[in-house]
Amino acid sequence: MKTEKEKMIHGEYYLAADEELVADRLRARRLTRLYNQTTEVDGEERTQLLKQLFGTVGGDIYIEPTIKCDYGYNIHVGHNFYANFDCVILDVCPVNIGSNCFLAPGVHLYTATHPLDPVERNSGVEYAKPITIGDNVWIGGRSVINPGVRIGNNVVVASGSVVTKDVPDNVVVGGNPARMIKNI
Amino acid sequence: MKTEKEKMIHGEYYLAADEELVADRLRARRLTRLYNQTTEVDGEERTQLLKQLFGTVGGDIYIEPTIKCDYGYNIHVGHNFYANFDCVILDVCPVNIGSNCFLAPGVHLYTATHPLDPVERNSGVEYAKPITIGDNVWIGGRSVINPGVRIGNNVVVASGSVVTKDVPDNVVVGGNPARMIKNI
Amino acid sequence: MKTEKEKMIHGEYYLAADEELVADRLRARRLTRLYNQTTEVDGEERTQLLKQLFGTVGGDIYIEPTIKCDYGYNIHVGHNFYANFDCVILDVCPVNIGSNCFLAPGVHLYTATHPLDPVERNSGVEYAKPITIGDNVWIGGRSVINPGVRIGNNVVVASGSVVTKDVPDNVVVGGNPARMIKNI
Repeated sequence: MKTEKEKMIHGEYYLAADEELVADRLRARRLTRLYNQTTEVDGEERTQLLKQLFGTVGGDIYIEPTIKCDYGYNIHVGHNFYANFDCVILDVCPVNIGSNCFLAPGVHLYTATHPLDPVERNSGVEYAKPITIGDNVWIGGRSVINPGVRIGNNVVVASGSVVTKDVPDNVVVGGNPARMIKNI
Repeated sequence: MKTEKEKMIHGEYYLAADEELVADRLRARRLTRLYNQTTEVDGEERTQLLKQLFGTVGGDIYIEPTIKCDYGYNIHVGHNFYANFDCVILDVCPVNIGSNCFLAPGVHLYTATHPLDPVERNSGVEYAKPITIGDNVWIGGRSVINPGVRIGNNVVVASGSVVTKDVPDNVVVGGNPARMIKNI
Repeated sequence: MKTEKEKMIHGEYYLAADEELVADRLRARRLTRLYNQTTEVDGEERTQLLKQLFGTVGGDIYIEPTIKCDYGYNIHVGHNFYANFDCVILDVCPVNIGSNCFLAPGVHLYTATHPLDPVERNSGVEYAKPITIGDNVWIGGRSVINPGVRIGNNVVVASGSVVTKDVPDNVVVGGNPARMIKNI
């Protein structure tokens, strides 16, 4: 029989009130709080906290506080990762980010979702879909990436975009919902 | 003769520099600051601060810091309310939220507005319109709800929406400006 | 020969890893951190910190924490300036804001940009374009102003806008991308 955590990570309905998951979220809240309390001269402490928080960290990771996430261990980033101020990653399912990716200020990545049916939603069940981001991707400020979206390599997401569908390699997308603007 | 506070809550032009209103905002700034300084293990303190801050609080309220608002006492929430990270509620006029409502990260609810005419606006007068949200409503991440908007029951607002008009019961809306996407 | 800082401010390709620029960003991080740690009763301290942080400050400046920026010294604001919660100003190039301007919560002003070509972008070169905002401008909540945009006088930007092009005097604009809604 699957645990709630196993169901969660596999994209099935799960109960967020599960004891193991509550403990996991408290751990992430604590680590993000400590991270967000560091100052601009605490480079080494920041790197160590991100290594504890995230599932996988490549070399050269730099995140401007604040960063917020749900579990942390579902976030996997390649080398040369930069996230500017106030990014939010709801990593209920895995968030896989390639190498050389930049998140501008206030980017939100959401794997988490809820049933549309109010009775089902109020029962406390939730689910999520993974987000995958390729290499060399620059996500513009204030963009939202929705659950289940796959973004290819060498993509630029214009500021203020709401990305609701997969994005192929080598394009600029923008708008709400995001549409292709041009090839790169 | 009406006080500035009475004018404000009734949607008339008022002066935000009024002494009573300045004191009321300082109270809300202090309580939200204390709330936002609590940690993930301070559940009881959080509940007590929200009871002081908000006008009405049903049972089972959970708000992830940070939360910011203008007065607090104009916010009325039913039971089973959850707001994720970084929500902002400009409660110059009443914000009435039903039961079983979820706000995803970074939802902004604005009752506050200003005159469009620059001379009038620079004179310091402001006004606001109430926001009403029904039962069983899930507002997606990074959505904005504009002054005067009424949202019905069992509504889902897609992430990144800017809701400028009333929303009937049992629909999903999305986009900027938000339009109906489907019935539930 | 131009320094990296001179190239940056003039909108040419520059290296953000330059020693002088790293020191300048640390200074801005420190001052914004101190500002964001002040409380609602620290009015005089807030004013002094903004005078240190910004390039030019007119009379009557009021910024609700948090405020975040890149350098600070490229931000020039006229008299009677108000910025609500959680504004972000990426002032890699100059941001000139006239008098009587209001930023609603969560407004982001971006002068910073990156090459679209991934090889060029990953090399570490960046560039920026100035933002100019006239007098008597009200920018609605959660709006984004893109690099190089000039906004005229007496303009209202509707909440949730993404402004990608210049805006003439005396209009309301809104949407993503922002378009003219009406004359004032």
